[in-house]
Amino acid sequence: MNNNHDTSVTVIGLGLMGQALAGAFLKAGHSTTVWNRTTAKADRLVAEGARLAPSVGDALTASPLTVICLTDYQAVHELLGATDVALDGTTLVNLTSGSSAQAREAARWAEQRGARYLDGAIMAVPPAIGTAEAVILHSGPQADFAAHESTLGALGTVTHLGADHGLASLYDVAGLAMMWSILNAWLQGTAMLATAGVDAATYAQFARQIAVGVAEWLPGYAEQIDKGSFPAEVSALETDARAMAHLVEESEAVGVNAELPKLIRAMADRAIAAGHGGEQYPVLIEEFRTPRNG
Amino acid sequence: MNNNHDTSVTVIGLGLMGQALAGAFLKAGHSTTVWNRTTAKADRLVAEGARLAPSVGDALTASPLTVICLTDYQAVHELLGATDVALDGTTLVNLTSGSSAQAREAARWAEQRGARYLDGAIMAVPPAIGTAEAVILHSGPQADFAAHESTLGALGTVTHLGADHGLASLYDVAGLAMMWSILNAWLQGTAMLATAGVDAATYAQFARQIAVGVAEWLPGYAEQIDKGSFPAEVSALETDARAMAHLVEESEAVGVNAELPKLIRAMADRAIAAGHGGEQYPVLIEEFRTPRNG
Ligand SMILES: NC(=O)c1ccc[n+]([C@@H]2O[C@H](COP(=O)([O-])OP(=O)(O)OC[C@H]3O[C@@H](n4cnc5c(N)ncnc54)[C@H](OP(=O)(O)O)[C@@H]3O)[C@@H](O)[C@H]2O)c1
Ligand SMILES: NC(=O)c1ccc[n+]([C@@H]2O[C@H](COP(=O)([O-])OP(=O)(O)OC[C@H]3O[C@@H](n4cnc5c(N)ncnc54)[C@H](OP(=O)(O)O)[C@@H]3O)[C@@H](O)[C@H]2O)c1
Repeated sequence: MNNNHDTSVTVIGLGLMGQALAGAFLKAGHSTTVWNRTTAKADRLVAEGARLAPSVGDALTASPLTVICLTDYQAVHELLGATDVALDGTTLVNLTSGSSAQAREAARWAEQRGARYLDGAIMAVPPAIGTAEAVILHSGPQADFAAHESTLGALGTVTHLGADHGLASLYDVAGLAMMWSILNAWLQGTAMLATAGVDAATYAQFARQIAVGVAEWLPGYAEQIDKGSFPAEVSALETDARAMAHLVEESEAVGVNAELPKLIRAMADRAIAAGHGGEQYPVLIEEFRTPRNG
Repeated sequence: MNNNHDTSVTVIGLGLMGQALAGAFLKAGHSTTVWNRTTAKADRLVAEGARLAPSVGDALTASPLTVICLTDYQAVHELLGATDVALDGTTLVNLTSGSSAQAREAARWAEQRGARYLDGAIMAVPPAIGTAEAVILHSGPQADFAAHESTLGALGTVTHLGADHGLASLYDVAGLAMMWSILNAWLQGTAMLATAGVDAATYAQFARQIAVGVAEWLPGYAEQIDKGSFPAEVSALETDARAMAHLVEESEAVGVNAELPKLIRAMADRAIAAGHGGEQYPVLIEEFRTPRNG
């Protein structure tokens, strides 16, 4: 693409995250227009070289690409739905957190008004923005992502997941579920080991190794799901279930929370009751696909 | 240590796992004595060079080190509790699965009868035994482990966790909780993404990266627990809770199981209600330390 100075960009919404986004564009040399409902939040960015737009409409026409990052989708609709705001010809990248349904609906709405629209999800905290550690997911038309990939690259590690606008939000919450699950499993073990006088730092090394090892199994296990066939190549769900009973009993015996162990066992027990005890762990996908509210 | 041929070892219990253990000792060149209640299970091992002991008592005196691997601790007590069985002077390594309380009780019992005792837990399936992939945890007196570490090393990657005989069993179930939690979080995400037409193999690559990344945070987060201080350096629990609400809503909206998302949210909500919303995720350790049965 062109050199950065030729690629101007607009950032709408200068909360904690929006300020970090605009700051990263400036630092990468993009000429950056900003707008925020509360004007004062633009002060530091203007001092760093940003141009403050007098209105949302002006902000949107100032650059071929506008990144928007507000509290929620309702704020986006309120702000961009105003009658004097023209979206025609703009490319909008909406990095506001929301659901896949909200993303798909916002895409339809923006496209009906003549905009190109990408939805995005930021898997990072503001201080990480502008570094490779900041993972930013995008979904929507591949060509629109390709046209702006190098500009967006100023924000972190940017990826395109597919044409369905709901994908960024789905991957985001799925990834967070992985994050919280690892943290919770680690806390469960930390609490159990603490009853035997083991400190958190000692157990963390062990937990880290297990987590990294198990992560490597996922691509292989995924093949079983995509084939819909779950031969017990490594071990059968019944064998896991016996060890799950040990986990529940041990949690109760040492006097820590047993909710997570019990949920793990309950899901396996249901799959076994459904006749899958001789199959391998990923057969549990059927339980996860079934709506159930705990 | 001596060369392998001078280090004889006994294996009691030739189920699926015991046969793998004895086979690995033979393959490493140890002169190996075996015993099993059902004698026929020794046939293949005898053909490979093992010596079949005529009685448990004989098996125990044949080698300075005896590895025992039966169904459960009750079987161990039944077998070794017989009046004609002398444990005096033997070193027992009990690799039978059980609880930390059972391990500590077996240690007292064996030591009262004059044996040295190590408890162990096998984090591997039988075909992995004898390879570095087979992780085998040991706990009990450090000197007893050190005396037999090189012989035990024939079984896989052997580690000593500490003098408390309950540690092997506690680390084992804690590690399994990590394994199942990663698999369950991955299945949750796989089920969610499937509703948008994403196959399991595609999502697995993403889930793997998240898991490996999060695993690396554990040692740092452990410092907060050991200090008992949880400043929100990266993000506050309240911020997580808002994203947890997205996860629950998204799971319900796309029609998959929401039990795991709801448990994740419930634990964070309780910590927030207890006044920890401004602190960082590991403050949840207090929830995990509290007995609760879901
Ligand atoms: N912060 C993080 O760690 C993080 C991480 C990942 C994703 N995110 C997501 O990024 C988005 C923004 O987060 P943030 O941390 O920047 O939040 P924030 O600091 O609370 O900022 C919210 C922004 O939205 C604006 N806004 C809200 N309602 C509006 C309306 N009706 N009209 C116009 N502007 C409105 C606010 O304007 P005023 O300044 O005028 O109030 C402000 O610019 C959220 O969806 C969040 O989930 C944040
Ligand atoms: N297999 C695995 O993947 C795996 C992985 C990790 C840990 N483990 C643990 O390893 C242990 C053994 O597992 P396994 O797979 O080898 O089980 P298994 O194939 O069912 O073998 C059980 C063994 O225990 C013996 N036994 C049971 N009750 C007895 C009694 N009262 N007196 C004498 N012997 C008795 C059996 O003797 P007979 O042959 O005479 O019945 C057999 O040798 C279990 O604690 C298991 O949890 C297994």
